Amino acid sequence: MKIHGPADKVLLPAGFRFSFATAGIKASGKPDLALADAPAGACAAATFTLNRMAAAPVLAGKEHLKTGRGRLRAVIINSGNANCATGAPGLRAAKDTCAALARALKINPSSVLPSSTGIIGVPLPVNKILSAIPRLVAGLAQGEQALRSFGKAIMTTDLTPKLASASFKTRAGTVSIAGVAKGSGMIHPNMATMLVYIFCDIAAAPAALRRQLKAAVEVSFNAISVDGDTSTNDTVLLLASGASGVKLTIPGVAAQFARALRAVCASLAEQVVRDGEGAGHLVRLRVEGARSSAEARRVARAIANSPLVKTSWAGCDPNWGRLFSTLGNTGIPVDPARVRISIGPHRVFDKGKVKAFDRAAAHAVLKRPEYVITVGLGLAKASAEFLTCDLTEEYIRINAEYST
Amino acid sequence: MKIHGPADKVLLPAGFRFSFATAGIKASGKPDLALADAPAGACAAATFTLNRMAAAPVLAGKEHLKTGRGRLRAVIINSGNANCATGAPGLRAAKDTCAALARALKINPSSVLPSSTGIIGVPLPVNKILSAIPRLVAGLAQGEQALRSFGKAIMTTDLTPKLASASFKTRAGTVSIAGVAKGSGMIHPNMATMLVYIFCDIAAAPAALRRQLKAAVEVSFNAISVDGDTSTNDTVLLLASGASGVKLTIPGVAAQFARALRAVCASLAEQVVRDGEGAGHLVRLRVEGARSSAEARRVARAIANSPLVKTSWAGCDPNWGRLFSTLGNTGIPVDPARVRISIGPHRVFDKGKVKAFDRAAAHAVLKRPEYVITVGLGLAKASAEFLTCDLTEEYIRINAEYST
Repeated sequence: MKIHGPADKVLLPAGFRFSFATAGIKASGKPDLALADAPAGACAAATFTLNRMAAAPVLAGKEHLKTGRGRLRAVIINSGNANCATGAPGLRAAKDTCAALARALKINPSSVLPSSTGIIGVPLPVNKILSAIPRLVAGLAQGEQALRSFGKAIMTTDLTPKLASASFKTRAGTVSIAGVAKGSGMIHPNMATMLVYIFCDIAAAPAALRRQLKAAVEVSFNAISVDGDTSTNDTVLLLASGASGVKLTIPGVAAQFARALRAVCASLAEQVVRDGEGAGHLVRLRVEGARSSAEARRVARAIANSPLVKTSWAGCDPNWGRLFSTLGNTGIPVDPARVRISIGPHRVFDKGKVKAFDRAAAHAVLKRPEYVITVGLGLAKASAEFLTCDLTEEYIRINAEYST
Repeated sequence: MKIHGPADKVLLPAGFRFSFATAGIKASGKPDLALADAPAGACAAATFTLNRMAAAPVLAGKEHLKTGRGRLRAVIINSGNANCATGAPGLRAAKDTCAALARALKINPSSVLPSSTGIIGVPLPVNKILSAIPRLVAGLAQGEQALRSFGKAIMTTDLTPKLASASFKTRAGTVSIAGVAKGSGMIHPNMATMLVYIFCDIAAAPAALRRQLKAAVEVSFNAISVDGDTSTNDTVLLLASGASGVKLTIPGVAAQFARALRAVCASLAEQVVRDGEGAGHLVRLRVEGARSSAEARRVARAIANSPLVKTSWAGCDPNWGRLFSTLGNTGIPVDPARVRISIGPHRVFDKGKVKAFDRAAAHAVLKRPEYVITVGLGLAKASAEFLTCDLTEEYIRINAEYST
């Protein structure tokens, strides 16, 4: 299996077309509409935000996946407006967008998934989108460049486009997976959403795709945090064209696909954290000795969301007492006499005992752009890896900017 | 009932003596030991941190209150070292401190409550404390000045001393309550603890004091947040000398006492938030329409701990969508169609509908040093008020400083 990053050639799945347009939703005049379509028979799975204030496009997308029984032909994304807290008119705007696109593509409205990202609580300028749909559809094209442009049109304050692809060979042919993402914790005023679109050419039923996506998301997008806020619009979509002719049900293929999908998701998730607003360090938290990997992730998330811990990382400060204190607030029955903490290779706390560690060496680890912090809970044998970043003055500067 | 702040004359409860000393725990050479004592028969109640990594003095203090059945004669506090993550030697250090003080005061070791605040994971220099105890005891004195010096010796990075007092008249005499606090979210490297000592001269049994303290803490110290981190050392102590001769059991007195205690706690809690590290604005969150006041506080706490919301306050930005999004992550079944949000007097979201509000006027509210944000959940009739502050670049600067 090969895994390619943003700088590499895209391992392009067959069967998809991509397009983008500038509808004038963003004040900056940058592209703010993106479209992808898939051939008849394409199937999809998606995971959506758990935020109860879910935006209108999330509600519409869920409904369409349900009524269409996982058959999906197109996804349309606008940036610059979240279409959230917009009530019944917002839902109508999302549906009108799908209906207009469906007419243009001669497909069923329920086979369109809409996404939005941007400011909350401002009516979606839906007429700008409707006017742009003809040229958006006219621009649909295959190929690497079309996918890259699609990926750029969904960016908001991301500093870099996020792209990963993988392919693997089977007896029945080659399968490719390519995904693009826009960042979460790209928390420019009003823009806090993570959107991910993963395209693949395997032939698979929606239920099998859902299982595959759920497993991959759990250890990738659900194992990162920039600032602990879950947006109203988060969406991860997996769309399968079937164009490779390789069926997921062929023995051995599901395991290969799972590995490749996980690698694509992990790469995109890491790219999102690396590009976190103001982030100075990528921190790999390894939590070991938990009773379940979900518990390990819960502990990691608590550490990753502590302002005190995150600011100590910004200062390259081996002040592990803050992390120790955070462990005590997780609701998990941690016992200091079983806990171990390491900064890079330096054990600083060992089962109730402070280790006389080399502060200068630990400080040197924390000055690196990327490092590992290991926490052993000593409860059982489950573990998890979690990616996060520090909390810097730059984050505050960006997010305290006035929104208008 | 009168309530006096830090600049007013202290309404001093009878029966207490106070002292302070410089033991050399703090590198700065500032006072780092404080002592208060009470006459025989004094009773106490305390609430401690819920952090499972509770420091040694918290463990020792809980044990002493239990074995002494709430009879307490003295409290000794050191700043500069938290005596946390210090294992068995740390617990021994806390107990040795109590034993030495008990010998000097000719009282039972279990009638001493120890407190510590400072860096986690560094052995407590207990010999420095033991050496200082004789001069600490020799310095015990009554009066307002002695209490003020006690209050200053427990400060770490607090910019201002925190002090509040109240008194009320009964047919049996006058009762006075005076409390001092050091800040939480005074989160200088390693110093994240809130310590509160409240002295009163009512005559009351420990169980009654516990009920009084619990009720007052719930709506004061449990209704504030600076950065969402719960320290390993948090302690709120209520110590009653009985020297007023007024019994809490006299009809009507318990209600008067509850009002006065609540006022003292509320004043101290507000002083703590006002002095939060880097805080530029004091935000009064009013959450209404909840199913219980605990639920209202839970919602308020989620808002108060969102970095996205806190940075928008730092920027005086009426970007209420961030707050709206936070509501969706509380786990409470909020329905956008019932939610109301106001910035000061300006309703910005009303039951599913965005209000066309005056952005300039809302911005002007948010530029004030202190303002109210009201959130109506529309679920039922319970409410809560919660105090918090913004998240500024100054907070990051202070907390990213290298700890050594």
